[in-house]
Amino acid sequence: MIPNLKIDGERLWDSLMDTARFGATPKGGLKRLTLSADDKLVRDWFVAEATKYGCTVGFDEVGNLFARRPGKDPSLPPIAMGSHLDTQPTGGKFDGILGVLGALEVMRTLATAGYETNAPIEVVDWANEEGSRFSPAMLASGVFAGIFSRETAWETKDRDGIAYRDALEGIGYLGEERAGDHPLSAYFELHIEQGPILEAEGETIGVLTGVQGMRWYDVTVTGQDAHTGATPMRLRKDALVGASLVIAGIERIAETYGSDAVASVGTVEVHPNSRNVVPGEVAFTVDLRHPDDAVIDRMEADFRALLADTCVARGLDWTESRFWNSPAVRFDPRLVDCVDRAAAKHGFLRRRMVSGAGHDAVYLSRVTPTTMIFVPCAGGVSHNESEDAQPVDCAAGAQVLLDAVLAFDATLARG
Amino acid sequence: MIPNLKIDGERLWDSLMDTARFGATPKGGLKRLTLSADDKLVRDWFVAEATKYGCTVGFDEVGNLFARRPGKDPSLPPIAMGSHLDTQPTGGKFDGILGVLGALEVMRTLATAGYETNAPIEVVDWANEEGSRFSPAMLASGVFAGIFSRETAWETKDRDGIAYRDALEGIGYLGEERAGDHPLSAYFELHIEQGPILEAEGETIGVLTGVQGMRWYDVTVTGQDAHTGATPMRLRKDALVGASLVIAGIERIAETYGSDAVASVGTVEVHPNSRNVVPGEVAFTVDLRHPDDAVIDRMEADFRALLADTCVARGLDWTESRFWNSPAVRFDPRLVDCVDRAAAKHGFLRRRMVSGAGHDAVYLSRVTPTTMIFVPCAGGVSHNESEDAQPVDCAAGAQVLLDAVLAFDATLARG
Repeated sequence: MIPNLKIDGERLWDSLMDTARFGATPKGGLKRLTLSADDKLVRDWFVAEATKYGCTVGFDEVGNLFARRPGKDPSLPPIAMGSHLDTQPTGGKFDGILGVLGALEVMRTLATAGYETNAPIEVVDWANEEGSRFSPAMLASGVFAGIFSRETAWETKDRDGIAYRDALEGIGYLGEERAGDHPLSAYFELHIEQGPILEAEGETIGVLTGVQGMRWYDVTVTGQDAHTGATPMRLRKDALVGASLVIAGIERIAETYGSDAVASVGTVEVHPNSRNVVPGEVAFTVDLRHPDDAVIDRMEADFRALLADTCVARGLDWTESRFWNSPAVRFDPRLVDCVDRAAAKHGFLRRRMVSGAGHDAVYLSRVTPTTMIFVPCAGGVSHNESEDAQPVDCAAGAQVLLDAVLAFDATLARG
Repeated sequence: MIPNLKIDGERLWDSLMDTARFGATPKGGLKRLTLSADDKLVRDWFVAEATKYGCTVGFDEVGNLFARRPGKDPSLPPIAMGSHLDTQPTGGKFDGILGVLGALEVMRTLATAGYETNAPIEVVDWANEEGSRFSPAMLASGVFAGIFSRETAWETKDRDGIAYRDALEGIGYLGEERAGDHPLSAYFELHIEQGPILEAEGETIGVLTGVQGMRWYDVTVTGQDAHTGATPMRLRKDALVGASLVIAGIERIAETYGSDAVASVGTVEVHPNSRNVVPGEVAFTVDLRHPDDAVIDRMEADFRALLADTCVARGLDWTESRFWNSPAVRFDPRLVDCVDRAAAKHGFLRRRMVSGAGHDAVYLSRVTPTTMIFVPCAGGVSHNESEDAQPVDCAAGAQVLLDAVLAFDATLARG
């Protein structure tokens, strides 16, 4: 039997607002770059708060921070919940932070109720999720999951030449535990949606079934610079008109593959970019995503055909390279089911969805059963100081996190 | 009777190559910014050469340089031929220069033959045609034609804060003659085409009937920034796709109005221009040209309708402003006819055409009967160090200039 425990939405909100002083920006956002002085302050706050509620706190060799509350059966690996406390340079108060403080609130609720889970419960702050100061993003969860080596993390440097390991040691969070020497029973991550769907549909809970596969491409279309006045249309090789037809066509490719397909061009560089010169070269980037890698294969083929057909028809040259491929992730159906039932139990309007953005959960899913929970954010805006979420939605997310964890924990009962 | 005088193509070519040392760049082009030390050197060369052939040289208060050979009737205003000796920062050896040195070659031919024209003949180097150092372009011919005031020219400053008047005085070419106090009987300008038509058609002489009207616009399309992964297609307001549809549509507008219509987008700026952000704003520039202002009116209306329809259909906002309008110019039919017959006399393949670029002749046409002669340039390339033209074509252009001037001069005979 799973008990009816209620998280304290006000306590959660107060923690979100209280810790937002660490790295607060004048515009109401946060600049809390990983392993900075402000990151140390929020970590210290987290350690103190978790300790106050009876947790044991530890951190590993790449700075992942674990607050553990014991369970009945010490032989069970812990059920982990978390996300990250670092932010973008002009980030908001919720991206990542809600996942850590929501998990902390779940732990506080259990502690306050004196409820004993079967497995230990861990609240995790994964280091350097954003990748703004040290590249790549999701670095420390990646080391934890065996994607990157410890040395890769340690040796990466920020723009001032400071190595990750030195920065970590500098704020006192270089641990001795080998990253990944730490099996988990499951991993749950609560996060703001960072997209507009839940808000647009009037729903409170996103029940995540996976993460979109995504592929990134660099494209260059080359024609010939020419004087806009002296060159008749029939003698032009206008790289920009060619690129524009491809850009508009990429939108139609996405629409061909249903509502889960997205295709975007985010950047364009025109050369020589002069008012009275027909552009001789245009470089742009393409981003294709879908929850099913087989569909992305078809989108990719369509995109390549569109590019080739458009350029051949206009006497343009082109180059195209796929330089990043992140395969689609399917979350563990048992965990997804726990989230779905938890949301249903509280009558929250919900939707099964896939994440369009990368999260620590992508890497965690390689080593442990994983899922995520989304709550709406205002206008879908994130990575921005104006990022915002409603207290009632944050509370709903933490409540679903609690009930889902308890439901999964119940499945671990022995005998 | 018009005599059969032959210009010396080799002498013309030697002068083109010889003066190309003033401001020569390592890549074989020229950097001869107006009123620079190199501009002084080529002016000094021009003065010496014209004087050697019996011309009187003078210059006006904005630095326009006139070499005059007397005619039979001193009461007739001179027939002027010319262009400019200044270049773009990475310019070529022909743009403008061919028009001055071709005119000089015509004068040398007359002097060598001892042929006396009815009207005086003037070879003119208009100052600051390019506008690269001092803005705007065609500044000194504009003052000559009463488009700009003398003070506008004198007070304009280069990037180092040096005023035009001071630079002019510095190289010793600040004259006392009031610009424009100098009536002309006619003005002929020989120039490389700066476009690909003559070369593509295998023709030698462009018989210019006018200059295209041109209008320039600034456009901004505004949608909403959004995460490329988290934002479904149906919830996007993608400013770039909207802009791309307009850019591709502008090409079709040009095609609607026949082979003389050109329409171009030369610059695009995407915001935030990030690989994984759906662009929220795109700014671009539009350039519409046609020899008939009434047709440009229709192209403009079509462009505005296309922009509005595209944006309205996609929920995008837009701004659009026409910030420059250069009305179409029609050259004097008598002069055009002189050029046409001169080309025919020598059996040069020729074509009537309009100039797509601005030239000193645009302003001169406001105050005196004017026309232009084009010769082919390699690939239509200009404003580039690789700008190139064939000796035989340069000679053909100068020969047509000579015969056209003589034909027009014959019409000035009294009694």
